[in-house]
Amino acid sequence: MSLPQSPRVAMIGYGFMGAAHSQGWRVAPRFFDLPAKPQMQLLVGRSSTGVADAAERWGWAETATDWREAISRDDIDIIDIVTPGDSHAEIAIAALDAGKHVLCEKPLANTVEEAEAMAAAAERAAAKGVYAMLGHTYRRVPAVTFARDLIAAGKIGDIHQVRASYLQDWLIDPEVPLAWRLQKEHAGSGALGDIGAHIIDLTQFVTGLLIESVSGTVETIIKKRPILTDHASGLAGNKGGEEFGDVTVDDIALFTARFEGGKLGTFEATRFSTGRKNALRFEISGSKGAISFDLEDLNSLEYYDATLPAEEQGFTKILVTEPGHPYVSAWWPAGHMLGYEHAFSHQVKDLIEAIAADQQPTPTFADGLKVQQVLAAVEASSANGSAWTQA
Amino acid sequence: MSLPQSPRVAMIGYGFMGAAHSQGWRVAPRFFDLPAKPQMQLLVGRSSTGVADAAERWGWAETATDWREAISRDDIDIIDIVTPGDSHAEIAIAALDAGKHVLCEKPLANTVEEAEAMAAAAERAAAKGVYAMLGHTYRRVPAVTFARDLIAAGKIGDIHQVRASYLQDWLIDPEVPLAWRLQKEHAGSGALGDIGAHIIDLTQFVTGLLIESVSGTVETIIKKRPILTDHASGLAGNKGGEEFGDVTVDDIALFTARFEGGKLGTFEATRFSTGRKNALRFEISGSKGAISFDLEDLNSLEYYDATLPAEEQGFTKILVTEPGHPYVSAWWPAGHMLGYEHAFSHQVKDLIEAIAADQQPTPTFADGLKVQQVLAAVEASSANGSAWTQA
Amino acid sequence: MSLPQSPRVAMIGYGFMGAAHSQGWRVAPRFFDLPAKPQMQLLVGRSSTGVADAAERWGWAETATDWREAISRDDIDIIDIVTPGDSHAEIAIAALDAGKHVLCEKPLANTVEEAEAMAAAAERAAAKGVYAMLGHTYRRVPAVTFARDLIAAGKIGDIHQVRASYLQDWLIDPEVPLAWRLQKEHAGSGALGDIGAHIIDLTQFVTGLLIESVSGTVETIIKKRPILTDHASGLAGNKGGEEFGDVTVDDIALFTARFEGGKLGTFEATRFSTGRKNALRFEISGSKGAISFDLEDLNSLEYYDATLPAEEQGFTKILVTEPGHPYVSAWWPAGHMLGYEHAFSHQVKDLIEAIAADQQPTPTFADGLKVQQVLAAVEASSANGSAWTQA
Amino acid sequence: MSLPQSPRVAMIGYGFMGAAHSQGWRVAPRFFDLPAKPQMQLLVGRSSTGVADAAERWGWAETATDWREAISRDDIDIIDIVTPGDSHAEIAIAALDAGKHVLCEKPLANTVEEAEAMAAAAERAAAKGVYAMLGHTYRRVPAVTFARDLIAAGKIGDIHQVRASYLQDWLIDPEVPLAWRLQKEHAGSGALGDIGAHIIDLTQFVTGLLIESVSGTVETIIKKRPILTDHASGLAGNKGGEEFGDVTVDDIALFTARFEGGKLGTFEATRFSTGRKNALRFEISGSKGAISFDLEDLNSLEYYDATLPAEEQGFTKILVTEPGHPYVSAWWPAGHMLGYEHAFSHQVKDLIEAIAADQQPTPTFADGLKVQQVLAAVEASSANGSAWTQA
Repeated sequence: MSLPQSPRVAMIGYGFMGAAHSQGWRVAPRFFDLPAKPQMQLLVGRSSTGVADAAERWGWAETATDWREAISRDDIDIIDIVTPGDSHAEIAIAALDAGKHVLCEKPLANTVEEAEAMAAAAERAAAKGVYAMLGHTYRRVPAVTFARDLIAAGKIGDIHQVRASYLQDWLIDPEVPLAWRLQKEHAGSGALGDIGAHIIDLTQFVTGLLIESVSGTVETIIKKRPILTDHASGLAGNKGGEEFGDVTVDDIALFTARFEGGKLGTFEATRFSTGRKNALRFEISGSKGAISFDLEDLNSLEYYDATLPAEEQGFTKILVTEPGHPYVSAWWPAGHMLGYEHAFSHQVKDLIEAIAADQQPTPTFADGLKVQQVLAAVEASSANGSAWTQA
Repeated sequence: MSLPQSPRVAMIGYGFMGAAHSQGWRVAPRFFDLPAKPQMQLLVGRSSTGVADAAERWGWAETATDWREAISRDDIDIIDIVTPGDSHAEIAIAALDAGKHVLCEKPLANTVEEAEAMAAAAERAAAKGVYAMLGHTYRRVPAVTFARDLIAAGKIGDIHQVRASYLQDWLIDPEVPLAWRLQKEHAGSGALGDIGAHIIDLTQFVTGLLIESVSGTVETIIKKRPILTDHASGLAGNKGGEEFGDVTVDDIALFTARFEGGKLGTFEATRFSTGRKNALRFEISGSKGAISFDLEDLNSLEYYDATLPAEEQGFTKILVTEPGHPYVSAWWPAGHMLGYEHAFSHQVKDLIEAIAADQQPTPTFADGLKVQQVLAAVEASSANGSAWTQA
Repeated sequence: MSLPQSPRVAMIGYGFMGAAHSQGWRVAPRFFDLPAKPQMQLLVGRSSTGVADAAERWGWAETATDWREAISRDDIDIIDIVTPGDSHAEIAIAALDAGKHVLCEKPLANTVEEAEAMAAAAERAAAKGVYAMLGHTYRRVPAVTFARDLIAAGKIGDIHQVRASYLQDWLIDPEVPLAWRLQKEHAGSGALGDIGAHIIDLTQFVTGLLIESVSGTVETIIKKRPILTDHASGLAGNKGGEEFGDVTVDDIALFTARFEGGKLGTFEATRFSTGRKNALRFEISGSKGAISFDLEDLNSLEYYDATLPAEEQGFTKILVTEPGHPYVSAWWPAGHMLGYEHAFSHQVKDLIEAIAADQQPTPTFADGLKVQQVLAAVEASSANGSAWTQA
Repeated sequence: MSLPQSPRVAMIGYGFMGAAHSQGWRVAPRFFDLPAKPQMQLLVGRSSTGVADAAERWGWAETATDWREAISRDDIDIIDIVTPGDSHAEIAIAALDAGKHVLCEKPLANTVEEAEAMAAAAERAAAKGVYAMLGHTYRRVPAVTFARDLIAAGKIGDIHQVRASYLQDWLIDPEVPLAWRLQKEHAGSGALGDIGAHIIDLTQFVTGLLIESVSGTVETIIKKRPILTDHASGLAGNKGGEEFGDVTVDDIALFTARFEGGKLGTFEATRFSTGRKNALRFEISGSKGAISFDLEDLNSLEYYDATLPAEEQGFTKILVTEPGHPYVSAWWPAGHMLGYEHAFSHQVKDLIEAIAADQQPTPTFADGLKVQQVLAAVEASSANGSAWTQA
C-alpha cells in the first residue's frame, strides 16, 4: 500500500500525549527530509468544544467527536491514538482493519487479551502493507538509541546483568486527590503499567533480549486519598458525599526478571521516590563494558570500556549531541541539548520512512504485547507470594 | 502603536539562527497563550533558490531577495534579523525608522559605532511605540531566568564575585579550514564576540550589575588554516592558489572585569577547551549563597544557601522543570527536559507580549551596545598590554 | 569492669582487615582524646614467620601462634578478631567468657547457629561489664552516621521506601582463579555475605528499622574457574591435576525486603557490575525528604528537603567535612577529605569510650545475628522460588 | 652522605601542618617498604608546655624550645619545618649548612629574596649529598601524579591552555576576626600565597611548563574585621581598645599567565567563593585530549581522549584507586578511597627513598623559588594596573 505524498493524519485524543504527538507531527517535517509530508488533518475528542479548542491550539485542521468518523473517511491515511489505554484495542483494531496505518501510544492496552487481539490485527494488516507502530517514544531519545547501537556492536560484550528503575515522587503528598489514574478500573495498574512499562520495553530494546520470567512485588503506600467534588463524578464507585476513596493501583512495583539466557535484571517503578521527578535509569553490565543512562540527564550516556588498560578505565560521560549520533545531525550543532519532545519527532520520522518504504516500523504491537505479558506476570507473581512467573 | 491580532513577521536570513528563530515563531503560539498570533509571512535571502528552499523547509509563506522589500511592505509588522553581524545596523535602523518592530539576533553589531547608531534608532522608535529587542536568547533558558530571580530576591545576598566561561573545542583540529568566522573583516572578532558576548550579557543580566572596566588578553592559537578551494572566493584577501590563509580573529579571550561597585569577575571564552562542546558556565558568589549554571546541563541550576546550618549546606541541584519555574508550566510535567530551542519560543512569547502591551521588551539595543562596549574594551586592553580599560 | 589506662590489645589475624584495624588502633589515640590509650600488644597468627613479619610491619609488640594464648594472658584486655568468618564464634565466645572485651570483624559468623551462640555469649558477658562489638565499620563513615542523624531527627519524615546496592566488578574476568572466597565451605556465601551484609546492616542502622522478611534470588554467573596450582592445596575438594574448579557461592544476590511497618526495600549485591569498584549505595525516601549515599564518594551525602518551596527543592550535595559533622572535628579543616580507613579510627574511639563508660558499644553481636538471619532468609527464599521468608 | 637505617627526624613547629606531617612520618613506614625507617625523635616549639602536649599527642620522643638545638644535635638527620613562612629561610639555611636534610612546608618563604637564599643553600648542600625538599604535598595526591604521568606520556598531545582555581569561602562571614593570616606583615599575602601558590606549583608540575609572565589583580573584599581582645596582642599595629583592624592581604587573586611557549593559563585563588570549601581545580587542554581535577573529589581524575571516534568521546571519570595508579598499591583494594593526609605519607616515602639513593627529591627549593617569583610578579602586576610582568 503506497503512502501519498501528503498523508493525512487523524489523532484520537488530545491530553498531555496529544500535545507531544502534535509537536512531533508539526516539527518532524521541518528538520528531517521525509519521503512524505504528513498533514495534521483531523483531531477527534468526545467534547465538541474541548476538541475544537485543542485543534486550534495544537494546529489540527478539522475536528470530530467520534473516532469512527476518522476511520470511515477515505482521505485519512494514518490514525494516531493517544486516548487512555482502555480504548486502544477497539480503535486500533478498527483502524487497521479499515486499512489505516496506526500509531498507538503506550501502553498498548490494559490487558493481555486486548494486546493479543491488537497484535493479531497488526499482523493481519501488515500482510496487506498496512502498518502499526507502538509509541514507546523513549527508544528514540538519541542516547537510548545510541546505547542500543553500542550494545549491538558488541562494545560491552556478553551481557551479565541489567538494572532499571523509573523513579517519580508525585504521590508522596497524601493530599494528592484520587483520580482515574489511581483506580484499577480505568488505569489497569499504577506505577507498574505507567512507568514500569517503559523500563521493560527499553531494557529489552537496548539488550536485544526478552524477559522470560519474573518475581515481583507491588505495593500501595497510601491506600485512601481525598475525593475532589469537582472530579468525583468520573471516579469508579463514587457514591457522592464520601471524603476519601480507595487507591486501587500500585504506588511501587519491584521485580526481578530473567531475560533470555537466564540473565538477571532488577526493576523498580515507583511514585514514592522522594526528589526523583522523572528518573528513568538503566545500566547494562557486560563482559567488556557497561552503559548507564538517566532520563533526567537525557543528552548524556555513560559508557565504560573494560578493555582499556585498568588505569584508564572509568565511566565516560558522552554528550550525545554529535552529528554522528542517532537523529542528532538534523537538529543543532554539537553541544546543543535536545529536550523531551524531540523523540516524538524522531518517532514521526521513523514511522513515515518505514511506511513509505513498505516496511514494518518498530516497536511493533507484538513488542507491546510482550511488555503487557511481563506486566501481567509481575502482578500475578505479586499476588502469588512473589513466585516466579512466566512472562 | 497597536499590534494586529495576527502580526506578520519577515525574517531576514536563514542560516542556523534562522532555523532556531523559525522554530520559535512556529512553536511559541502553540504552547503559550499569546495576545497576538504571529504569522510566518516572508523569508528574505539573497539567493532566490536558497531562500525558496529555506522557506519551504522552515515554513515561511513568501520569499524575497532584498530585505528592503520586507521593510517597504505595509503588511509586515515585525522584522526578525538573523543575518551576519555586519549587516545588522543597516537593516535594523531602516526597519525601526519604517515603523517595524525588530528582533535582532546577537551580536547587535560588529562595532561600537554601529551599535550606538542602532541603540539611538531603537530609542527614537520606542518613543513612537515601535520596539526593538536583541536576541540574547540564553536569558530565557528557564534555569538562567530563575537564577536572575533568585538573585533579585536577595537569595544570595550581596554579590562578592562572578566567574563565567564559555568553553568550546571545535577549532583544536588544525585541519578545520579557514572560514569567514575566522576573519576579522567579516566576523569582527572570534571567541570573544561569538561566545564571550553571551557570558557578558548573562552575567550582567543575572546580577543586575554592569561591567565598568576590563583587563583582557586575546590570543590566536592556530594562526594559519587551510583554504578550501570551494569556499575560497568568499574569504578576504584570498588571491587564489594559496594553500593556507591567516586566521585574524582570536581563539581564546580571557579577561578580568570590574562590575559596578568594583566587584570582580573572571571571564574566559575559548574554542580550544578540548572536550567542552558548549559549556557556557557561570557562578555568582554572594554573602548569603551562590548560584552555578552550566548550559551543558541546561535544565538544572545549582543553588547554595549559606544561611542554613553549616552541616546542611551544600550545592542543591534544582531541576528547573517545576510548574513554578519561569516558562515551564507551558510545556511538560515536572521532570521533563527542555532543549536548546525552547528559549526561542520564550523569546517570541516575551516579544509579542511586550509589544502588545506597548512596553519595551528586553534585552534592549542599549543592552547590546553595552556588551559591544565591553567587547571593544577587551580588545583594546589586550592590545595595550592588558591595561585596565573602561567599558 | 574497669578499663585500665593503657588497655592491651591482642589482634587475631593479620590480612587486609588486620592492616585496617592496626591503622585504627595506631591512629585513633592521636586524633581523639580517648579515656584510655590502647596498646598494640600482641599479634596472633598461625605461621610464626608470617605473624612476625606482620607484627613488624603493622607495629605490634609481641606475637603468638595460638589465639588461646592471647585469651589466657591476664594482661590482655581486648581481643580484636580479624580472621575469616568460620573461626569467629570459637574465638569470640572463648574471649568473652574469659572476660576479654571483644571487637569482631564482620560477618559475625558464617551461620545463624554460630551467630546465636555468639550473641548469647555477648549477653552473658555484658552482664559482667565485658563488652562485644561487631566491626560494621561503614556505620562510622561520617556521611553515614550523619544520614542516620538526619533521619533520626525526622528530617525526611516517615520512611516510604529503601533502596540499597553494593556493586563491584572484580569477578567479570573469567580468568580470575578459584579461591576460598568462592567456595561455600569456607566463605559461607559470596556477594551476599561479603557485601550484601553491609547494606543490610547500614539500611537497618540509618532507618532504625529491622528487616522482617525477604524474597530473594542468588545467582552464580561464572560457575567454573581456573585453579592456580600454587593455591590449589587450600581449596575444598581439590584433587590435584584439575584445571577448573566449581564456584559454589553466589556472584549476584538480589532481594526485596519488608522492614518493620511493611516498608519495602530493594537490595542488590553483585560482583559483576562492570565498572563499579566499591559502590555501596543507599537511598532512603520519606514523606518529608530523602537521603542518598555512595561510598565511591564517601565524603558526601545528598539530602533532599521536600518541605522547601517546590522551586527550590533538589538534592543537596553536602560535603560531610564540617566540624559539626560526626567525627570530623578531630581531623582536618572543612573541605579536607577523609579516606576509607578513617572509620577504623572512629570504631576504636567509640569502642574505647563505651567500655570506659561501662556501656554497650554498637553494633552489638545481636545486631550481627540479625544480619545473619537476613542473609540466611535470602538464601532460603532463593532456594524456595523466591518465596517470602521470615528473617 | 649516607642515611642511617633509622634516621632521626626533628620537626620544628606543630600546628595544623605539624599534625599532617606527623601522620606522614608515623604511617608511611607501615604501608611502604622504605630503605630506612625514620624515627619521630624531636619536636620543637617555643612554648615548653605547648610543645610537650603536642609531642605527647603526635608521638614525638623528645621536645625542645629552640630550633637551634635540633640543628646542633649530631643524632638528628632530618629537619622538618612546619613553622609559618617568615621563619623558613633562617631555619632551613642553618639546617642545610649544618648537614641536615630538610623538608620544608610550603610556601618556601615570604619573599623572593629569602627564597633565593634558600635555593642557593639547597644547591650548596646538594653538592655534599645533603638534600632539601619542599612540601607541595598535593603533587602526591595519586590523581595529580597520574595526571602528570598521562601528560608526560603524550596522552593529551600539545598543551593548548591551562585553567586553575583554588576556591574557598571561609572569609565570607564579616564576623570572622582579624588574625595574623590576614596581615601582610605576618602572612606575606592572602589567598595568593596561601592557596594560589598551590595551583601555580601544580600546573607547572603536571604540564612540565614554567610560567614566564603574568597579568594579575588582587583584591580585598572585606577591609576591616573585628579584633578579638584575646588575640589582639599578637596582631600587628594593634594599639588596644580598637574594635576593628585592617585586613592587609588579598581575599581574591586573579591572574592570566603565559607559560613557556606562550601558552595561556587562567588562575583564580579566592576565599570568597561561597560554598566552595577546598576546591583546588585544574584543567589542561591539549591537541589530543584533556585532563580535569578537583581536590573536593580527590580520588578521581577526568580524562578526555580526543583521538577516539567522535561519538565515543567524553570525559572519563577515572577512579584513581587501581593498583597500577601512583602510590595506590600500598594501601587498600581497588575502589577504596584515600583521604587528605595520605599524600603526606607519599611525601615521606619519596623523601626517604631519594635521600637513601643519594638523589635530589622534588619539589626542590628552586621549584619553590619559581613559585615565589610568580607570586611576586602577580602582586607587582596588580600594583601596576595589571601590566604583564616577568615571573
